[in-house]
Amino acid sequence: MQVAYVLYDEFTMLDIVGPFQMLSAAIGLESVWVGEEPGPVSDHTRTGALVASASFGEVTAPDIVVVPGGMNTSVHFDGRIREWLIAVHPTTTWTTSVCTGSLLLGDAGLLSGLTASCHWAASPQLEQFGATPTHERVVMHPEQRIVTAAGVSAGIDMGLTLLVELQGREAAETVQLALEYDPMPPTNAGSPSKAPAETVALVQALLG
Amino acid sequence: MQVAYVLYDEFTMLDIVGPFQMLSAAIGLESVWVGEEPGPVSDHTRTGALVASASFGEVTAPDIVVVPGGMNTSVHFDGRIREWLIAVHPTTTWTTSVCTGSLLLGDAGLLSGLTASCHWAASPQLEQFGATPTHERVVMHPEQRIVTAAGVSAGIDMGLTLLVELQGREAAETVQLALEYDPMPPTNAGSPSKAPAETVALVQALLG
Repeated sequence: MQVAYVLYDEFTMLDIVGPFQMLSAAIGLESVWVGEEPGPVSDHTRTGALVASASFGEVTAPDIVVVPGGMNTSVHFDGRIREWLIAVHPTTTWTTSVCTGSLLLGDAGLLSGLTASCHWAASPQLEQFGATPTHERVVMHPEQRIVTAAGVSAGIDMGLTLLVELQGREAAETVQLALEYDPMPPTNAGSPSKAPAETVALVQALLG
Repeated sequence: MQVAYVLYDEFTMLDIVGPFQMLSAAIGLESVWVGEEPGPVSDHTRTGALVASASFGEVTAPDIVVVPGGMNTSVHFDGRIREWLIAVHPTTTWTTSVCTGSLLLGDAGLLSGLTASCHWAASPQLEQFGATPTHERVVMHPEQRIVTAAGVSAGIDMGLTLLVELQGREAAETVQLALEYDPMPPTNAGSPSKAPAETVALVQALLG
């Protein structure tokens, strides 16, 4: 199976590297990093870059697509990513997104009538695409072959969830152990319901 | 403060992107990606590459150093990374590693007499450097300014732990919420004590 990891200017690195590390550790999943053209693509901090190994035109039948979020996702609406998603989605096994990547799935018309996840602060923006925002970590729609995950780090949980679906629980457990994914955050503020109200207001103002 | 993210052939992507995403989201931490020379550096799957923005020679006084693990860490022993770590460590605020990156700190003589973490399957290899392996998620030695983390995904927890140290709990909580780091793995096999015995034996055989 071919997994296509989508890169675009100002994507968020962990959004795509989380699912990549989980899925690429499994047997039989081949990785391709796809962008406008092959070469380095800057992340949203503009200090880091991941390298696209293929252009959108070269990846015509991926089995799984992973679209990361970014800081300026809307500048990519109605462009090459939309065109490519519309072209490849009919034959994917799963078309997936992390964080504000779900806005790009929405822009391609793939979330119409579906519940979907997103970064919590950007979640209401899903409504413009006819989607119903939820705050679940990972939302799967098997019939439409669509998976959306919550903000940034949720892509790791999405990758592992996809492995359970694709290869079963034992394969996912093997990868989880190999990547020592036994999270122990030193603070407990990972969602709006857990963080102090002033922290929620601050992050909403910065990212909403 | 300048944070130097070390890249070398066959590094593991999540090892370095985890701490990067946490630390770069904080105010006042500047990122530099450092390698043998500027340009793309292949990850251990050889499908992905992150771009070094500077050579080791150009980064002479980083405040924080993060060394990721990789699949063939030992081929980098006694080379340019060791030389650079020995040169920059005396003036860092924290010199840190994720996964088998601790073997590179050990190779540079920075772990002698200390407890240290590593990927659980490679942990015994720390003994050759006079270190005592532990299975803690994040091990901090404030006096020596050394932090080591467990395998791969532990770098995320290390990044957040460093933020608590550097900027306090509120700053760390803000970043945790911004990155929606509210982990919900669908399986529960992230450490040898939690995974089935046959899974532990399999991963040990593959990675040990």
